[in-house]
Amino acid sequence: MSSDFGLIGLAVMGQNLILNVADHGYTVSCFNRTTSKVDHFLANEAKGKSIVGCHSIQEFVASIKRPRKIMMLVKAGSPVDALIAELLPFLEKGDIIIDGGNSHFPDTDRRYAELTGKGILYVGSGVSGGEEGARYGPSLMPGGSKEAWPEIKEIFQAISAKADGEPCCDWVGPAGAGHYVKMVHNGIEYGDMQLICEAYDLMKRVAGMTPKEISDVLADWNNGVLDSFLIEITRDILKYDDVDGKPLVEKILDSAGQKGTGKWTAMNALDLGMPVTLIGEAVFSRCLSAIKSERTRASKILSGPAVSTIPASERAAFVEDLKQALYASKIISYAQGFMLIRNAGKEYGWEFNMPSIALMWRGGCIIRSVFLGEITKAYRKTPDLENLLFDKFFLDAVTTAQSGWRKTVALATLNGIPTPAFSTALSFYDGYRSARLPANLLQAQRDYFGAHTFRVLPEFASANLPEGKDIHINWTGTGGNISASTYNA
Amino acid sequence: MSSDFGLIGLAVMGQNLILNVADHGYTVSCFNRTTSKVDHFLANEAKGKSIVGCHSIQEFVASIKRPRKIMMLVKAGSPVDALIAELLPFLEKGDIIIDGGNSHFPDTDRRYAELTGKGILYVGSGVSGGEEGARYGPSLMPGGSKEAWPEIKEIFQAISAKADGEPCCDWVGPAGAGHYVKMVHNGIEYGDMQLICEAYDLMKRVAGMTPKEISDVLADWNNGVLDSFLIEITRDILKYDDVDGKPLVEKILDSAGQKGTGKWTAMNALDLGMPVTLIGEAVFSRCLSAIKSERTRASKILSGPAVSTIPASERAAFVEDLKQALYASKIISYAQGFMLIRNAGKEYGWEFNMPSIALMWRGGCIIRSVFLGEITKAYRKTPDLENLLFDKFFLDAVTTAQSGWRKTVALATLNGIPTPAFSTALSFYDGYRSARLPANLLQAQRDYFGAHTFRVLPEFASANLPEGKDIHINWTGTGGNISASTYNA
Repeated sequence: MSSDFGLIGLAVMGQNLILNVADHGYTVSCFNRTTSKVDHFLANEAKGKSIVGCHSIQEFVASIKRPRKIMMLVKAGSPVDALIAELLPFLEKGDIIIDGGNSHFPDTDRRYAELTGKGILYVGSGVSGGEEGARYGPSLMPGGSKEAWPEIKEIFQAISAKADGEPCCDWVGPAGAGHYVKMVHNGIEYGDMQLICEAYDLMKRVAGMTPKEISDVLADWNNGVLDSFLIEITRDILKYDDVDGKPLVEKILDSAGQKGTGKWTAMNALDLGMPVTLIGEAVFSRCLSAIKSERTRASKILSGPAVSTIPASERAAFVEDLKQALYASKIISYAQGFMLIRNAGKEYGWEFNMPSIALMWRGGCIIRSVFLGEITKAYRKTPDLENLLFDKFFLDAVTTAQSGWRKTVALATLNGIPTPAFSTALSFYDGYRSARLPANLLQAQRDYFGAHTFRVLPEFASANLPEGKDIHINWTGTGGNISASTYNA
Repeated sequence: MSSDFGLIGLAVMGQNLILNVADHGYTVSCFNRTTSKVDHFLANEAKGKSIVGCHSIQEFVASIKRPRKIMMLVKAGSPVDALIAELLPFLEKGDIIIDGGNSHFPDTDRRYAELTGKGILYVGSGVSGGEEGARYGPSLMPGGSKEAWPEIKEIFQAISAKADGEPCCDWVGPAGAGHYVKMVHNGIEYGDMQLICEAYDLMKRVAGMTPKEISDVLADWNNGVLDSFLIEITRDILKYDDVDGKPLVEKILDSAGQKGTGKWTAMNALDLGMPVTLIGEAVFSRCLSAIKSERTRASKILSGPAVSTIPASERAAFVEDLKQALYASKIISYAQGFMLIRNAGKEYGWEFNMPSIALMWRGGCIIRSVFLGEITKAYRKTPDLENLLFDKFFLDAVTTAQSGWRKTVALATLNGIPTPAFSTALSFYDGYRSARLPANLLQAQRDYFGAHTFRVLPEFASANLPEGKDIHINWTGTGGNISASTYNA
């Protein structure tokens, strides 16, 4: 019983997290199902560090100080349940299991309830930052058994990234709240990546710019409001040459996977009835990219407009508009993401600390950015902020960006370049600022064909259209006057 | 044992279906949990018809000829399970239970498996057409136990709508296939309604047209390629006046519900990785409409461009462009919907009869249209059509419509009117016809921060970039060379 922390699962993230914990003065036990990985790790990366290799679960558990803090970094799904079942016989009441994988939050809810019943503390923690983050400071989003927090806080905040001196790790909430917030983080990451891809595609296809020219633009953008990890790595990717001296990025197959947390975020948004359209479009864009051979066949028969290439003399103005489109769309995406989190808090009974969430994403993780510093400020100023767009900083930003944003979307539309994320962001903005949307007609249609009823606008309430009542009109003069009660067409 | 058919659930849809079956010469038993509804129905609408009222499940089951054909039209969810449990003690092997409600297809899959094990035939049938359809000819989409089809075919095809003389009812497939197809039908219905709402909103807000002027435009559109039930009822809704002589539609609260099958369709599309973006945006638009008070607050602080009203002299051209936008977007929506069905057939092992599906929707249901006749033709000509856009009719249509479609979206964009469905349809079209999308950059990003690997475009394969292999590049020159195996950022 000498280790401060234990970690199971020696894939790259697990190894790097162990090294990170050890670097902060803690002794870490490690275990992996394929035990040769333990030996290899001990003989190489872990050599000379306060890292204890174990060859069985029993030996592993016995090597950790009580209350034990055991983190799992294994594939999400049944492997997590299997590992918990293997651990349980050796654990004692008050020990802490931490799932640091990308588990779906309803699974974490279930495991939390099961283990709470057994006296084991359970933490589902989002971990973001990829290989580098895990090694030198990830964003950590722990939630679950609140009693576990004082026990793990010191280690978690020590190994996490820091932003303006503050740790990018705080307690998120009960049950699956930590994995929930990580899920939305990943959804937002999908959105950020899609936005950058659309900007790149426009510069390439409408302005005829080379990867290096685009890289230079991103380098410039990275000095201002768009300063972020993703812009920075994209700048570097675009100037990375293959061995033949040609840009590697242009040789990569344009077919992206999407089986993870982005999809879950979009599905959760639909389930909670929150219009998180940008993440939805980002996920669907990956789906569309994946049917590459079908697209190739389609490209030979479906026509489009000739592209009006931007002349060099107008490139600077085009790039400036594009920057505004990217910035405004990003604001919308985060506004939608925080709308979702706020609503999930109400729906699931979790009291989220909104400024903390922004701060946790401020550093360490894939979406880290200067921008998230502004979001942290906004929520610190107004913790119950209804929408990010109601904060003066973002309101001013989107107001200024609007003209370039509209010009960019119109340009893409007329030139036949797909910008699903820019476009949906703008549609959302225009819908959100519309006191009246055409859903009145939709309600009339539903009442006409399915007797679904509608309500009256308060200003038009009358004896035959009473306010707050479900009204059905016999639109055709024939048919019944019965309102639909079981049928949803 | 004298009835040909039994139906449980006397809400409006149930009553109307019973009357429809009775009108075709069959004797129908009916039952309702609140038995006073049975008495009321028998004493009124059902009076003098071949309809037998029952006051208990036992009496109801005993009154039906074997093999019994018992249709349930009750609220989806646990009421269906409860009713099946109540029926089971009185049924015999080979009897048929038909769920005509809007059950979620995985529930129908489960019930099908359970009842098949008990020797009961189970049918999940989509029923569309609202009150009027149920009464005079709905679209019926039955699936489940194939042995049930010869038993129910005659009644189902007798009471269903007819299109060009053919019944809008055919066998869909096993298990939950019938409810699956009904779900996608409803998703498409969400899309169609949203498209009409966007057209209405543009005519109202950009061209300053009155409901009656818009109604006249729809009357004209209803004579051509857009001829459909939804255009027709919208034409009528827009000229329906309240008692004070003012258009009723303008008094209706613009807040639409979305708790049903549209949401399921979008979630299923995400789950199967199919880019069904238009239904997704239609569902999200309802979500956005629902937060009316938040929108109202937002409308007071978020700015937009001044609308450049279309002068009367340019109205005809604007309306023609708009028609093309609606038509092209509708083609995209159906192309996406049929992509989803085709993929679901592969995923779930259901052999869908594609021309039949289009024909079932051709009449009776909410999305019935001349358009679906063209889809039927396309699939009859090429049953394994990869995409509707590959059919000459739709290819030509979208090619012709394209210019007006782009102008409309650009106009909406610059004037600040939200057109999420028109816009996403166009983004999909432009993405689908792009042999190269910017997902190459996205794959590079994923490999950079998470070692997720990428593949090379075949034309750029080389010794260091082998074709068909998962490649990881050490982009930074630091960090490990390990590919991510368990971590999905």
